[in-house]
Amino acid sequence: MGEEKPPIWLESDFNVGPQYGQASAPTRPAVPRRELDVPALAEQVRAGSRGAIAQAITLVESSKPAHHAKAVELLRILRPDTGKAIRVGISGTPGAGKSTFIDALGRRLIADGHRIAVLAVDPTSAKTGGSILGDRTRMGELAQSDAAFIRPSPAGSHLGGVARATRESMLVLEAAGYDVVLVETVGVGQSEVAVAGMVDTFLLITLARAGDQLQGIKRGILEMADVITVNKADGDHEREARVAARELSIAIKLINSDPHAIPPPVLTSSSLTGAGLEEIWHAIVDHRGRLEESGELDARRARQQRDWLWALVQGDLEDALRNSPAVKAIRAELESDVESGDLSALEASQAILAAFASDAERMLG
Amino acid sequence: MGEEKPPIWLESDFNVGPQYGQASAPTRPAVPRRELDVPALAEQVRAGSRGAIAQAITLVESSKPAHHAKAVELLRILRPDTGKAIRVGISGTPGAGKSTFIDALGRRLIADGHRIAVLAVDPTSAKTGGSILGDRTRMGELAQSDAAFIRPSPAGSHLGGVARATRESMLVLEAAGYDVVLVETVGVGQSEVAVAGMVDTFLLITLARAGDQLQGIKRGILEMADVITVNKADGDHEREARVAARELSIAIKLINSDPHAIPPPVLTSSSLTGAGLEEIWHAIVDHRGRLEESGELDARRARQQRDWLWALVQGDLEDALRNSPAVKAIRAELESDVESGDLSALEASQAILAAFASDAERMLG
Repeated sequence: MGEEKPPIWLESDFNVGPQYGQASAPTRPAVPRRELDVPALAEQVRAGSRGAIAQAITLVESSKPAHHAKAVELLRILRPDTGKAIRVGISGTPGAGKSTFIDALGRRLIADGHRIAVLAVDPTSAKTGGSILGDRTRMGELAQSDAAFIRPSPAGSHLGGVARATRESMLVLEAAGYDVVLVETVGVGQSEVAVAGMVDTFLLITLARAGDQLQGIKRGILEMADVITVNKADGDHEREARVAARELSIAIKLINSDPHAIPPPVLTSSSLTGAGLEEIWHAIVDHRGRLEESGELDARRARQQRDWLWALVQGDLEDALRNSPAVKAIRAELESDVESGDLSALEASQAILAAFASDAERMLG
Repeated sequence: MGEEKPPIWLESDFNVGPQYGQASAPTRPAVPRRELDVPALAEQVRAGSRGAIAQAITLVESSKPAHHAKAVELLRILRPDTGKAIRVGISGTPGAGKSTFIDALGRRLIADGHRIAVLAVDPTSAKTGGSILGDRTRMGELAQSDAAFIRPSPAGSHLGGVARATRESMLVLEAAGYDVVLVETVGVGQSEVAVAGMVDTFLLITLARAGDQLQGIKRGILEMADVITVNKADGDHEREARVAARELSIAIKLINSDPHAIPPPVLTSSSLTGAGLEEIWHAIVDHRGRLEESGELDARRARQQRDWLWALVQGDLEDALRNSPAVKAIRAELESDVESGDLSALEASQAILAAFASDAERMLG
């Protein structure tokens, strides 16, 4: 598709660091620009160049239409080298110590010879702007290791775009030889569902608080978890954490809807003492091993790919609907009439579709 | 929209009984046909004519484009008389005795002076064809009452269409003076989510089986429930049911994600002895009363209307995408290439959108 188009310059050709979209992009002095050589970039990514990896991720994160074809080309070249990592999603209640946990787990895995990539899905990061510095600080030790690559969440107000960028960044990092990818999610809205759709194993981090261990966890997250840990199990809190883990384990078995499913193990951990990290990693590797042995890993990834294809199509359709000038012109009034009962939803939906029809071919083609 | 079109004949003008779509519609002898007089039909619905109600529901259930404008007109006329019923969603594990429960509860409510409508959302009914006779038989006593109107699930392989028809049938029945609407769902896939989007209160019916009361319940359903009952609490099973209800109540509090939410009461019931039916109805009325007092009922219904509007738009967009000849021509091959990893999801999604663009205006306009 892009072949007939004029050469494309990547704004960040000479800016190899992370770039967080237009909203927060610093104004840069004019620098010499050259056309991006995608095969050369892919080569450098494969060789593990940190600068090239950062540039490649900036490319796949870009929402500029001009970068799209380049990103597609890059991912096409890298594809044979992707898919080999252990992909782990990590979610947790606010204050459960997620970043510190990832820092501690990551360092331990590096000591065992792994190379660790840490990504994040946080559609709110564009608004707060705070998570970038936060992550860097909280994962300070891990960030200093050559065997770790930490990438904060791409900016983006809507989850679809953020999830897409993260998923493609994961492929870049796999091609660069990172064999463990940890995808952190903030526990807001549908982020976990998006992350569950791109990982093999989902770890949930929670805290011991008598009677309400899961306070703050969004509905349905519990049922996605393959491994659960009650964190901050140290000092005075160790016993409390162990009791909470046992209670939670019983509750999960009680509400388990599929009698054939293996309920997730509920463990305890401390980033401070390192206790439990080994067991959690074993539980993750066990889960992944069971998937592999049963052939479910390949089936799951194929399903994830197909689901992702349709999610992309649906996301683009929704974007087009949202941005259609004809729809924009009428939607507020229609919504208000429907809410007040002055207009039926059926009539309003017909009006919206008729408006969209006039914009659709131009916007989708 | 329909005003300029030629007169529309409703196939079922003289067939006032339920009609289950083309798949299962019996071949009928040729009958005289007249154009449907929508205002007259609305008048008869308001007067409570069972024949008119059945015909109105057949009209709103129809997927024929020619019937669409008539249905819109009918609902526009009836609108001022809708919205007054207590709308209750009912779901349950297979074998929990849902139909018998509805029969028993319905008869009790009728004895108290209520008029009861029973609807169903079952996207699988078109395939099995069995639920129609089944419902009629299992709700035999209720079906004989003049104060009850039982309508099986409309046929339809996809949930969107079934949910739409049920929601509009509910409006017809409200306009006809039914003050309690029970919407039964089969507990398959996303049916419960669709039903939760059209009712005020959601009742979940389950059974006492040590340790796995919720076996067979789809994920997330538990968190939708406003009232829960452990059914078949009679004879030898009464004590067992009470223990199960207590256990379930504790588990629900333990996994409760919102500390401000009032956890659903877990009761026990028997359709055989009638025990517990009174308490369940009180719990439903209480829940609804709290919604009304806090102003949440109006807010919830306005939200349901707005969500429904966008669900209709999305459903129609998805239908157009699914039925687009250009998309149909390429989708199987693209999906298979994406699953095998020969093609990226990104490239495939672009190809699908480009194909759809050529069909979109014609299909949506």
